[in-house]
Amino acid sequence: MTALVSGGPSAGELPLGSFVTADGRALSGLRLRYRVLGNVEAAREHGWILVFHALTGSADVEGWWGPLIGPGRALDTSRHAIVAANLLGSCYGSTGPREWADEHDEPFPDLTPADLTLAHAPLLAHLGVERLALATGGSLGGMVALEWGRRASVPTDRLVVFAAPAATSPQAIAWNTVQRMAIEADPAWRRGRYFPGRGPAAGLAAARALAMITYRSGVEFDARFGRQSSRTAGRFDVDHYLRRQGDKLVARFDAASYVALMRAMDLHDVGELRAAALETAGRVRRVVGVGVDTDLLYLASEVRDWTAAYRAAGMDAQYREIHSPSGHDAFLIEWDQVEGILREC
Amino acid sequence: MTALVSGGPSAGELPLGSFVTADGRALSGLRLRYRVLGNVEAAREHGWILVFHALTGSADVEGWWGPLIGPGRALDTSRHAIVAANLLGSCYGSTGPREWADEHDEPFPDLTPADLTLAHAPLLAHLGVERLALATGGSLGGMVALEWGRRASVPTDRLVVFAAPAATSPQAIAWNTVQRMAIEADPAWRRGRYFPGRGPAAGLAAARALAMITYRSGVEFDARFGRQSSRTAGRFDVDHYLRRQGDKLVARFDAASYVALMRAMDLHDVGELRAAALETAGRVRRVVGVGVDTDLLYLASEVRDWTAAYRAAGMDAQYREIHSPSGHDAFLIEWDQVEGILREC
Repeated sequence: MTALVSGGPSAGELPLGSFVTADGRALSGLRLRYRVLGNVEAAREHGWILVFHALTGSADVEGWWGPLIGPGRALDTSRHAIVAANLLGSCYGSTGPREWADEHDEPFPDLTPADLTLAHAPLLAHLGVERLALATGGSLGGMVALEWGRRASVPTDRLVVFAAPAATSPQAIAWNTVQRMAIEADPAWRRGRYFPGRGPAAGLAAARALAMITYRSGVEFDARFGRQSSRTAGRFDVDHYLRRQGDKLVARFDAASYVALMRAMDLHDVGELRAAALETAGRVRRVVGVGVDTDLLYLASEVRDWTAAYRAAGMDAQYREIHSPSGHDAFLIEWDQVEGILREC
Repeated sequence: MTALVSGGPSAGELPLGSFVTADGRALSGLRLRYRVLGNVEAAREHGWILVFHALTGSADVEGWWGPLIGPGRALDTSRHAIVAANLLGSCYGSTGPREWADEHDEPFPDLTPADLTLAHAPLLAHLGVERLALATGGSLGGMVALEWGRRASVPTDRLVVFAAPAATSPQAIAWNTVQRMAIEADPAWRRGRYFPGRGPAAGLAAARALAMITYRSGVEFDARFGRQSSRTAGRFDVDHYLRRQGDKLVARFDAASYVALMRAMDLHDVGELRAAALETAGRVRRVVGVGVDTDLLYLASEVRDWTAAYRAAGMDAQYREIHSPSGHDAFLIEWDQVEGILREC
């Protein structure tokens, strides 16, 4: 459906050489797995699109934003080329804790959304990208997008940030803390030094189950599950659902990557908002912050607040809100609204 | 301060004999640990007060509602006698899973708030209580209080229910599910068949940490912790706080009791509200439901809704709201407001 038009690779792996983090630590041996979709020829005229994935996402943007991608769609593959990298720390081809442990004795380093952003500069240079029509992402991807605003290596027309605050709140850190505690309660965690394929399945499942509550909403659970026990005798459907969500993530994600990217989310903080806005204004023409009215994890008010602060600093910064019963995950569900925002803004 | 006036025992243990649950299961060998405070003589005229504790509370009401108790206080020990039992399933002297396992091969039975209520009838008979001036409790204790309304063994003047819904929502069940999953991720859980003192400490700590987030509020965490890491390098203060709360509970509570009482909370459902109101109207003169405006766990709107339904059914049912940054736990914190509600209503 969205096959790559001639002129560029559809996927690749880029060694980052000597990578320096935002706070000046030199890290060697990192690699970035990426994918390119769309029309690379047309992108020379209309600009590229850079997409950042969320906590358990990947460079396969079609896998989680598929309905937005295609000729004439919001992420228009006839006019643009779309590039997405698997974020550093993740387990879908870029360097994460598992690959790191193969070559280093010291633990996987703390990475921030700023670091995850910085890793994209060599990728865009490698692809010959000189201008972005759009940089966007949601949740962790939204945090990385906000940092892209401050650190963009090429001029960027529009930055659209879904469901991400300017700094992670203590309550959001708290949800992550409990997820860490659940993973650590599983002895298979072994402080991250487990053998491949033998990670803390029960702990990671519990962590994912908690995350799912914060990604959805009570209104949705009322409508979807109520107090029914229709699947397993003596077990509420919502209990069954959460356990299944846990099992599904265990089958596809690595616990150490999960912990590393939660840490990145905890560390997210663009700092003083006026300064961040001024940095962004030098690189990005327009910023749009998108909140979800039912988001439990990163409140709509948090998105509204940084958007207002960017505007007060003189930037072209708009706030949009998705109305949904689905909570935080609405940016992966409410296709019409997401499409409308990406088109109009 | 609130020493017992002559005329009654200050504490005791009552074998329940052949106890029958609300759904007709006969259970033998159960015991109830209870405490009595205040003036038993005066209570013959002014009535007794029955208090139900929350998930990790105990019959020691002074330990968690101390500021409300004393001569001239809302729970007036000069005019009333106060009785509280450790709820069945708990680990503070009444029969819980540990004691059950000593005498039974089958697992500890599912108990509902209705069952926890029913166990109080023989206790009041044993103490010679013929009338209650007040029955009250919060959270799980509020659920038990609501069931007391439907099943009171003696006439009750006022029923004051803090921070409890008419039926536990799927989202609240979801929080409990994750807590169960965290406990199960700890191999020391052994499906509840661990040796005394050797329970799933890490799993229970993670469960408690999650519960604490739902007992408090984002507003409180913002003010109290922000994004500070002032205690341990590289660890956010809110992370430190949650781990400490987990450790504190592990030191004082049994994991199997915790699981049993979470199950009781999940099973809480007074059923059709008009029918529940009519049952209650035959036993209780006035019902007051108290919500907390920032409660994440049992929403103020849930309390308001059942109170309105009871009123619509013809009961004297009032709704009051505690305004607090502290979330669900406000009924254990906002002494002036709780005292005011207990006095005025």
